[in-house]
Amino acid sequence: MTPDGDAGPDRTVDARVIRTRNDILSTALRLLVENGAEATTHAQLAHAAGYSRATVYKHWPTRVDLWRDAFTRLRRLPHHTPSGDVRRDLRAELAMFSTGMDRGLDRILAALAEITTASPEMQQVRDEVVTDGEHVVREVLSSVLQGPELEAVTLMLCGSVLYSALLHGAPPDDDVLTASIELALLGAAAGTDRHDGDDSGV
Amino acid sequence: MTPDGDAGPDRTVDARVIRTRNDILSTALRLLVENGAEATTHAQLAHAAGYSRATVYKHWPTRVDLWRDAFTRLRRLPHHTPSGDVRRDLRAELAMFSTGMDRGLDRILAALAEITTASPEMQQVRDEVVTDGEHVVREVLSSVLQGPELEAVTLMLCGSVLYSALLHGAPPDDDVLTASIELALLGAAAGTDRHDGDDSGV
Repeated sequence: MTPDGDAGPDRTVDARVIRTRNDILSTALRLLVENGAEATTHAQLAHAAGYSRATVYKHWPTRVDLWRDAFTRLRRLPHHTPSGDVRRDLRAELAMFSTGMDRGLDRILAALAEITTASPEMQQVRDEVVTDGEHVVREVLSSVLQGPELEAVTLMLCGSVLYSALLHGAPPDDDVLTASIELALLGAAAGTDRHDGDDSGV
Repeated sequence: MTPDGDAGPDRTVDARVIRTRNDILSTALRLLVENGAEATTHAQLAHAAGYSRATVYKHWPTRVDLWRDAFTRLRRLPHHTPSGDVRRDLRAELAMFSTGMDRGLDRILAALAEITTASPEMQQVRDEVVTDGEHVVREVLSSVLQGPELEAVTLMLCGSVLYSALLHGAPPDDDVLTASIELALLGAAAGTDRHDGDDSGV
């Protein structure tokens, strides 16, 4: 709200700093996809982004500082805006998640998991990224499911996309994705019917 | 079937060679879990396993040779023997898959995906490992599902376990795993009822 320093020259400096940081962080995610987490060092990042090592170290003294800011950028990924049609909303949101996989999101998420195992201080960043990534699926499903069933279907739908991308080499085909959503919603409806049946003593 | 060479001394040599290879390959998988794929080099592997670099290079001239043999060991992982009770069989098999996650299988599978992206010649090994890993789930589900629905539920059940381990830090809780299986089977039954309904004109 209240910017530090003078208005004129500092604005220019700020803009340049922001551009530098954006350049380096997007390069970091690209290197992560291409070479993996361990191979993405400050030195290689400086070289690939075209900045000095001193600049990279100045902005991010440690690798955790760097990864924290780089992964926080994932929170800007596009999401579907729910329309109220559960099937259509899930399809649209999972299609966007699948498109992300085709652009390396599967490797970025696997690297996030790897980095978090090695550096537990990254756990909060991972949780924020995952919460943000799942929020549309959870919001849409919460109109038909709750409790462990909501958790189960969220993990199954998001999980099937990531798992298929990582271990089958591509996200699920359209007909498989449609079948996943259909079966999950049929299961939800059948579960509700059964609970209703239990309630009425049938 | 017909061993090469003489029976006596060569058997001893063979046993030693097998032990050496087993030592080094299991160390390779351990380093993979601890340090990631990129950091697991022939030199570090030799050091960690207590053999010379020459020995490691003699058995596996390239990293792909090494990873091919190391990941092929995953095909020896234990699986549940189906009893014919679909729910119980799925629960038991997914519980074993979840136990694997607690022992680093999530990181090993993420590394397999990473290595396969970098070295497409690993694709056959990845496919064999995945086919073997999923075979019990597919076999059990094939009694109640087929086509895209079978594929969808296989990806959802296996995917929810891996996804949760990688991005929530642990495989799904028991109640979530139970809900996943229940919803998938309710969905399958509801889908079958609906198809049956279609067939009979209802």
